[in-house]
Amino acid sequence: MAATSSGTPSSKIKRGEIFAVRCPSRTILKDVTSRWGMLVLVALREGTLRFSDLRRKVGGVSEKMLSQTLRRLERDGLVERTVHPVIPPHVDYTLTALGEGIGKHIETLTDWIEVNLPKIMKAQQNKG
Amino acid sequence: MAATSSGTPSSKIKRGEIFAVRCPSRTILKDVTSRWGMLVLVALREGTLRFSDLRRKVGGVSEKMLSQTLRRLERDGLVERTVHPVIPPHVDYTLTALGEGIGKHIETLTDWIEVNLPKIMKAQQNKG
Repeated sequence: MAATSSGTPSSKIKRGEIFAVRCPSRTILKDVTSRWGMLVLVALREGTLRFSDLRRKVGGVSEKMLSQTLRRLERDGLVERTVHPVIPPHVDYTLTALGEGIGKHIETLTDWIEVNLPKIMKAQQNKG
Repeated sequence: MAATSSGTPSSKIKRGEIFAVRCPSRTILKDVTSRWGMLVLVALREGTLRFSDLRRKVGGVSEKMLSQTLRRLERDGLVERTVHPVIPPHVDYTLTALGEGIGKHIETLTDWIEVNLPKIMKAQQNKG
C-alpha cells in the first residue's frame, strides 16, 4: 500500500508544536478538554444518545453549556448530529470515527483520575 | 502478595462516577485538563524545569497563569516544587510519580491531537 499524505499524518507533524501559541491544535485542545467536552465524549462512547439522555448522563451540565459543547465537538468533526424526520423531531448524537479515536484516550485519562483519586485527595489533605 | 486497599484502588472505584456532579474527580479533571495544566504536565515529562524555562516552553502563558497552574498541580500532588537554598534562590518543578502517571496519558492525548489536526481542520472547513 502506498504511503499517502493522509495515511501518514504523523510524518508531517512535528511533535511539540502544541507548545506554540499559534498552533491551531490549541483551540482543539480547548474544545476537547473542556470539562463538558471530555464528559460528553466519554458518555457517547457507549453509543448514540439524544440530547435529553446526554444531559441526564452528564450530571450538572446546563442546557446551554451542553448545546455549546455539542456544537463545538460537531464543528471539530468529533460528533455527528442526526435529525430524524419524525413528529416530534428527534435529534441524536454519535461519535464520528475521529471522535471515537480521541474518546478512547480521554476515557483512559478519566479512568486514571477515578482510580487515582484517593491518592490525589490524600496529597491535597497533606498540603491543606 | 496480599491485595491491599492501596494496591488495588481500581476495585474500590465504580467506573462512571466522573459523571456525578459531586464526584471530587471533577475538580481534578478541571485542574489537569485546563489548557495550561495539560501543557505544563507534558512539558515536565522531559525533566525538571525552572519557572522561567517552563514559561518559555509553554508559549503564551502569563506569569500569573503559570503560577496558578503550578500551585494547583502541586496541591493535587502531581508536581513537586523544590527551593534550592542558593543565592539568588533557585526554584524548580518536577513531576511526582503520580504526575508522571497522568502526564503519560495526557501526552498520548496531545500527540493524538497533533497527528489528527489535519483531519479536524478539514472537518471545520467543511462546516464553515
